[in-house]
Amino acid sequence: MSDPIGKWETRGKIQTLFRRFDFERYAQTRDFMDALSELAQADGVHPNNINFSSTYVNVTLDPTESGQANHSLAERIDALYKPTGP
Amino acid sequence: MSDPIGKWETRGKIQTLFRRFDFERYAQTRDFMDALSELAQADGVHPNNINFSSTYVNVTLDPTESGQANHSLAERIDALYKPTGP
Repeated sequence: MSDPIGKWETRGKIQTLFRRFDFERYAQTRDFMDALSELAQADGVHPNNINFSSTYVNVTLDPTESGQANHSLAERIDALYKPTGP
Repeated sequence: MSDPIGKWETRGKIQTLFRRFDFERYAQTRDFMDALSELAQADGVHPNNINFSSTYVNVTLDPTESGQANHSLAERIDALYKPTGP
């Protein structure tokens, strides 16, 4: 993907980012959730809100402390997304 | 708890169960999420929808195949809830 950030929507006056990740099977969704959990644990940061079901994960990211949209975290989450994996 | 199921709300015509779990810290929330993931993997069943943030997890459970509220899964999820853990 040349422009992963283009897949995230900016929502609200505070620069929240939102993206929906779709999957074919629950096993893929669970793998993505596990990867998100590891990322959060490693970085000490975590998404503001995650809403997920069998085949999708909706992620909302808080702005950084300086009030900017957290594009850095968005890129790292994008890198975890393997919708056509095993 | 003598009546854990009493903490779940029944929502909608199909017998969906809903419960909010509150935590003091994100580390506790993450441990609960990890336990939920292990339960789903072991049982081959998973909640219909999970919405979580730093200090809460909202869980919605589908009815069983026979159309009844899934009290069995609700009890197993209740057993994972340790809001005052480390």
